[in-house]
Amino acid sequence: MISGQGTLPTGTRRQKWWGWGEEGKSYPLEDRPRALPFLNQILGLSGNEISPRLTLDQIRLRESRADGRLLVKLRSIVGETNVTTETRERLVHAMGKGYQDLIRLRRGIVPNPPDAVVYPASEAQVAAILEYASQRDVSVVPFGGGTSVVGGVEAWPREEGGLLLALDMTRMNRVLAIDQVSRTTKAEAGIMGPDLEEKLNHAGYTLGHFPESFEYSTLGGWVAARAAGQKSTKYGKIEHMVEGLRLVSPSGTIATRDVPASAAGPDLRHLLIGSEGIFGVITEVTLRIHRYPDRMEHRGILLRDFSSGMRALREIMQSGVNPPTLRLSDSAETSAFAALLRRPRKTIDRLETRLGMWLMARRGFSLESGSLLIMGLEGTEGEVAEQKRIVLAECREAGAFNLGRGAGETWHRGRFELPYLRDVLLDRGVMVDTLETATTWRNLENLYLRVKEAMEQAIASMGAKPFVMCHVSHAYRDGASLYYTFLAKQIEGREVEQWREVKKASCECILENGGTLSHHHGVGLEHTPWMESEVGRKGKELISAVKSTLDPRGVMNPGKILGTTPEWRGT
Amino acid sequence: MISGQGTLPTGTRRQKWWGWGEEGKSYPLEDRPRALPFLNQILGLSGNEISPRLTLDQIRLRESRADGRLLVKLRSIVGETNVTTETRERLVHAMGKGYQDLIRLRRGIVPNPPDAVVYPASEAQVAAILEYASQRDVSVVPFGGGTSVVGGVEAWPREEGGLLLALDMTRMNRVLAIDQVSRTTKAEAGIMGPDLEEKLNHAGYTLGHFPESFEYSTLGGWVAARAAGQKSTKYGKIEHMVEGLRLVSPSGTIATRDVPASAAGPDLRHLLIGSEGIFGVITEVTLRIHRYPDRMEHRGILLRDFSSGMRALREIMQSGVNPPTLRLSDSAETSAFAALLRRPRKTIDRLETRLGMWLMARRGFSLESGSLLIMGLEGTEGEVAEQKRIVLAECREAGAFNLGRGAGETWHRGRFELPYLRDVLLDRGVMVDTLETATTWRNLENLYLRVKEAMEQAIASMGAKPFVMCHVSHAYRDGASLYYTFLAKQIEGREVEQWREVKKASCECILENGGTLSHHHGVGLEHTPWMESEVGRKGKELISAVKSTLDPRGVMNPGKILGTTPEWRGT
Repeated sequence: MISGQGTLPTGTRRQKWWGWGEEGKSYPLEDRPRALPFLNQILGLSGNEISPRLTLDQIRLRESRADGRLLVKLRSIVGETNVTTETRERLVHAMGKGYQDLIRLRRGIVPNPPDAVVYPASEAQVAAILEYASQRDVSVVPFGGGTSVVGGVEAWPREEGGLLLALDMTRMNRVLAIDQVSRTTKAEAGIMGPDLEEKLNHAGYTLGHFPESFEYSTLGGWVAARAAGQKSTKYGKIEHMVEGLRLVSPSGTIATRDVPASAAGPDLRHLLIGSEGIFGVITEVTLRIHRYPDRMEHRGILLRDFSSGMRALREIMQSGVNPPTLRLSDSAETSAFAALLRRPRKTIDRLETRLGMWLMARRGFSLESGSLLIMGLEGTEGEVAEQKRIVLAECREAGAFNLGRGAGETWHRGRFELPYLRDVLLDRGVMVDTLETATTWRNLENLYLRVKEAMEQAIASMGAKPFVMCHVSHAYRDGASLYYTFLAKQIEGREVEQWREVKKASCECILENGGTLSHHHGVGLEHTPWMESEVGRKGKELISAVKSTLDPRGVMNPGKILGTTPEWRGT
Repeated sequence: MISGQGTLPTGTRRQKWWGWGEEGKSYPLEDRPRALPFLNQILGLSGNEISPRLTLDQIRLRESRADGRLLVKLRSIVGETNVTTETRERLVHAMGKGYQDLIRLRRGIVPNPPDAVVYPASEAQVAAILEYASQRDVSVVPFGGGTSVVGGVEAWPREEGGLLLALDMTRMNRVLAIDQVSRTTKAEAGIMGPDLEEKLNHAGYTLGHFPESFEYSTLGGWVAARAAGQKSTKYGKIEHMVEGLRLVSPSGTIATRDVPASAAGPDLRHLLIGSEGIFGVITEVTLRIHRYPDRMEHRGILLRDFSSGMRALREIMQSGVNPPTLRLSDSAETSAFAALLRRPRKTIDRLETRLGMWLMARRGFSLESGSLLIMGLEGTEGEVAEQKRIVLAECREAGAFNLGRGAGETWHRGRFELPYLRDVLLDRGVMVDTLETATTWRNLENLYLRVKEAMEQAIASMGAKPFVMCHVSHAYRDGASLYYTFLAKQIEGREVEQWREVKKASCECILENGGTLSHHHGVGLEHTPWMESEVGRKGKELISAVKSTLDPRGVMNPGKILGTTPEWRGT
């Protein structure tokens, strides 16, 4: 039914409507004998909990309200086959992939499915759609891979009962240029992570942007949400990679110049990056790229504790090297990592593992109290050697047990798999979500402890046993980000409410203690209640003023960033 | 008369009203025997040209229109002695230090002197002043060191004949914190470059920001204009250093969070950085700082030509090292540099110089056709060694003659002196101004040639002999900036018109050929005619929308960035 320049859109068609990633792909627990016992123990589960989900046939989706006039107009813009009101497509485009989304999708609670999904193939088509939508007050949700975990792509009309379109960008997936002299690439915003990276690799380059959602997210989505990737400590967050971009709004197109730096007034790029679709649709991006590294290496290192690990990370970053990955888990996450290890297949591997454990214990380290650092090094041979020298020296200084390349490669192989594990946990009646923040080095441990405590208290206050784990996901010279995962047994019938309590307690705690509302997930719908605490009243007014200029009818991705009126959200 | 928390404001009091820097300080030509003959030759001067300037007594400044009510109110806010209507202060605060400014000041053409100069000592005082000014429609020009060369601090009321205040920030000059753990400092925006750097050095750190105006410019001015410094290839432009900032607008204060990175919507920092006072006054900035380098080294290297030099710079930047300074002059600028060399004092030095010249010539290099690269290296011993290894290897590859440390140190010693030379040239009836842009590596040589040609044509078309020189001032992985100096004999009585023609031709050429209107000088009044070409109609609308939100009465630094109505400018 849908054709993207002759081929199927690469994005949502293959994805599960109720969970992460492709249909048929799951997180294998069979050869991880410690996983379920660990889970049952930390959350106080019997192991018999199940949380059933509806089948597609059982979902009763509200009928599309798209009228003939709307559909005829859209078809005249994008072509007959690139508009759909099909149930599955409307369902996949109704929400992102946050915990709250999956809980509702599995139970068939989809209050605002889009009335139609439209697949433009060019900037001109996007402009025509937005112009028409603005005239008719039809709300438009720009949709890339749909992997937002903060409600950034949730179908949400401007007013209750209003018409709503999902604008799927995945047909706009061309690489327009690779400039090997300036080391930049220009691509359409709907291109998926692997497609862009593969084309760059083929020419000898890498973008260096690998969010956990990499396989299913788009360039435009990364830019709209100010994403970070697993190698961003070297390559930067997406906002550092963007040299220039184009955004189509209902009132016209805005383009920044492709120049390395400028002093021609405020930098409007940074107003469009992170705008999450509320101003318009990012259609094209020019990105800085890097020579494909000669060498990549991943290692696991066990630090005595999280605190000394954080100090080591700071020393590394402030020494001037930029290893792409420095992922430091607290003791809870380290023990979870250990519980998820696969059973060694060969006798020799089993013996090696045992020997390693024995050595580790003899030296006073443990996977229960220690802090696992995954370090990823990459660059020329010389750069990798220098990164390694400094990282290992700082770790030795802090007291460390080198787990070697095996632990690092295990993490690297499975680096896009964890969202699949969430579906397994959801099946077993477990609440599991992540949230993240960033702060300065001086404040990092304080913020870490306070947010963890706030989460644990919020979960416990509702009668469940909390398990909160955390890692430092991205490090800078002046600070770092903290990435939390919180788990508990679901409270049946109150799943969303339970989750909201944790979210609320966490966000309030973050803002009271010098963190930021998000380091790389974005604001979406979920964080809007705290945007005023984050940017102040004036800050929100500025964002509103820009929105009014670009989207005077308010049709673009309603409710995101700026929030909706409390009455309309029913809170 | 004026007291800044017990001391004199460090800024404008000591500065010449008619030229650069401190009274009594000048550019010494005595021991540079080749300088004047070279100047006369390139511009076709007789050497007898003089361009007289008025004395302070001869300047007839329009009477201050500040009424008693205004002065009483201002004094009630900042204290009796921190408001002045004194002629010299009004004159110094009437304009910046651009060619157009100095030409007019020397001739007593000062159409819009501020009616009063006010020196606040706290953010609360700034807020009170702006609130009152907004109520009474009094225009306010925020003023740091007053070194803008693009009309960024020109006193310019909202409407002809309107009341106008200069808000001198130099009493707000405290370093509020140096956080050695997070490697940041927080300072008030009115602090002058040397004061901030000295305090950081004392604690073992450096900011790494050294614009040519360093000695006379303020932190707030740097941030307001998106400044770059002579070491920004390593340390970044000022916008890369800002972790967070506070801005007071007539409608309230906006503060960003001091965090290393965030995804909480658009990055409002970058809307305030580069806002040049049109939204409000930057009062406080948190900056990333660096360990004071163990080692610094400057060297001069002569490349065969500008073209091969540009290629070498690109290779250096894309190899991953970040030497702080890579300043590559074209052949015109290289020959000017040679003409400005001091006569060696000792016989041994004279012999060494002669030997060097002989060796250079023997190897086929010349200071007339070659391209001088000043490289500045800094960091730990290891970092400097690595920077040097790569820079020298790339230069050898390109064909280079190593001029050694002498040439580098000569440049480094005189790095803040060139603006003084401008005054000497102005005295001799020479038009001299600079402008700068940036573009990608792919476009760099093309843009270089076209802008140079446009400047030469514009100058020649008015009957003068042009001399245009250029250097690459800042390099990035994806591109670089071009910094032009243009000279010609002044056309008597039409000095400003002559200059405007060159400016117009240059800016149009830059924008037609993929450059940006400014890489680090800013927009000010001078570049406003081309802002729509730079950021588009929508871009200007966005900036206007933000301005209307923060400054609804339009009293903040009128005319800058967004421009004034053509009727009112009389163009």
